[in-house]
Amino acid sequence: MASIKVHGIPMSTATMRVLAALYEKDLQFELIPVDLRAGAHKQDPFISLNPFGQIPVLQDGDLTLFESRAITQYIAEEYSEKGEKLFCPGCKKVKAATLVWLQVEGQQFDPIASKLAFERVFKGMFGMTTDPAAVLDLESKLSKVLDIYEARLSNSLFVACDCFTLADLHHLPAIHYLMGTDSKHLFLSRPKVTEWVNKITTRPAWGKVIDLQKL
Amino acid sequence: MASIKVHGIPMSTATMRVLAALYEKDLQFELIPVDLRAGAHKQDPFISLNPFGQIPVLQDGDLTLFESRAITQYIAEEYSEKGEKLFCPGCKKVKAATLVWLQVEGQQFDPIASKLAFERVFKGMFGMTTDPAAVLDLESKLSKVLDIYEARLSNSLFVACDCFTLADLHHLPAIHYLMGTDSKHLFLSRPKVTEWVNKITTRPAWGKVIDLQKL
Ligand SMILES: N[C@@H](CCC(=O)N[C@@H](CS)C(=O)NCC(=O)O)C(=O)O
Ligand SMILES: N[C@@H](CCC(=O)N[C@@H](CS)C(=O)NCC(=O)O)C(=O)O
Repeated sequence: MASIKVHGIPMSTATMRVLAALYEKDLQFELIPVDLRAGAHKQDPFISLNPFGQIPVLQDGDLTLFESRAITQYIAEEYSEKGEKLFCPGCKKVKAATLVWLQVEGQQFDPIASKLAFERVFKGMFGMTTDPAAVLDLESKLSKVLDIYEARLSNSLFVACDCFTLADLHHLPAIHYLMGTDSKHLFLSRPKVTEWVNKITTRPAWGKVIDLQKL
Repeated sequence: MASIKVHGIPMSTATMRVLAALYEKDLQFELIPVDLRAGAHKQDPFISLNPFGQIPVLQDGDLTLFESRAITQYIAEEYSEKGEKLFCPGCKKVKAATLVWLQVEGQQFDPIASKLAFERVFKGMFGMTTDPAAVLDLESKLSKVLDIYEARLSNSLFVACDCFTLADLHHLPAIHYLMGTDSKHLFLSRPKVTEWVNKITTRPAWGKVIDLQKL
């Protein structure tokens, strides 16, 4: 029996972030589905694991964590010796840049990218109607953010430094969904961003996350 | 000459977060004002420090950082031996809880609290009109978040553990502004939240941040 349990579903962006980190670290885990349609995430027993009633939740022995980005950091630190390094063991400058770009993903990229993925992908799944004005507005905002990424990625191979780190990994779920929509031109019109998207989406660990969606 | 430079202004919430960390750590620094009204943050030389064109920016020797929460973590780690500990030197469980509650602030509390502060405080300063429907909606969302804080703070003195950590500190700017508005009832109607607000807002380091606003 795996001591690591993930409560979530493979199509949830936040769950995918955690699954990607677990596969990068080559860790065994058990995925415990949560029936969102039935509202299982807003009731006991789930709500006692995460009072915010959202997936994913990670249990590792007697530890319970929620918030996908906290879980990935826990995994990267607790299992630092296993699988891929998710923090670049670099100098002070690299560590500072990693802190910065972890926040850039959470504060600048994701608030726009996940709203755009909601309009373009998830609304359709839930029988809701995409709002074209919202899409235009979000695409224009994401363009400005990606201009900054294009400049950044002209100076380093990945966002924080020349190694793949958690700061890159955190972008994967939203990028995956957006690359399946007409918004992909935002990425493909920027050469350095395109190279980066190719590099991070073709990692074997990410392939395993996508495979889980196909089961 | 101080080797630490902060580019920002004392009324900016994100700048206040960084100033609070510097004062907790008893570090000398130079505050370099940025003229937001003149758009200095969207032009060189500022934009070459932070391509997102936002305050604050921290310079420490030849390191340049942006994103307030990255800066506070850098300060807490780089100057771990100075002033107050901003991470509880506890067990694995406490470290995991700190990771979780740092994300709760950034992902659950701040997106609502800072929009509410914008409606209630900053719109007025900028000659804009508060939208009462938005206020109602944000207050209802913040209430639900604060219910979870009330339960959490019944089990520990601060959000991550029984010590003050960065996870508490990050809340200070939005709480400070909201406690000066009619939204303060959201905090004051919850006894454990009220105790916590009192404990964190009466810290000497935070007093120094507020004093800077009065200059
Ligand atoms: N900031 C959270 C977001 C989690 C989140 O939004 N989860 C979604 C699925 S991707 C969810 O549970 N949605 C149901 C809900 O919010 O009610 C994290 O990163 O873990
Ligand atoms: N996520 C950023 C937010 C920074 C931010 O929003 N700064 C505001 C002042 S509090 C600013 O520069 N606003 C001007 C703008 O965004 O154009 C951080 O935490 O540093």
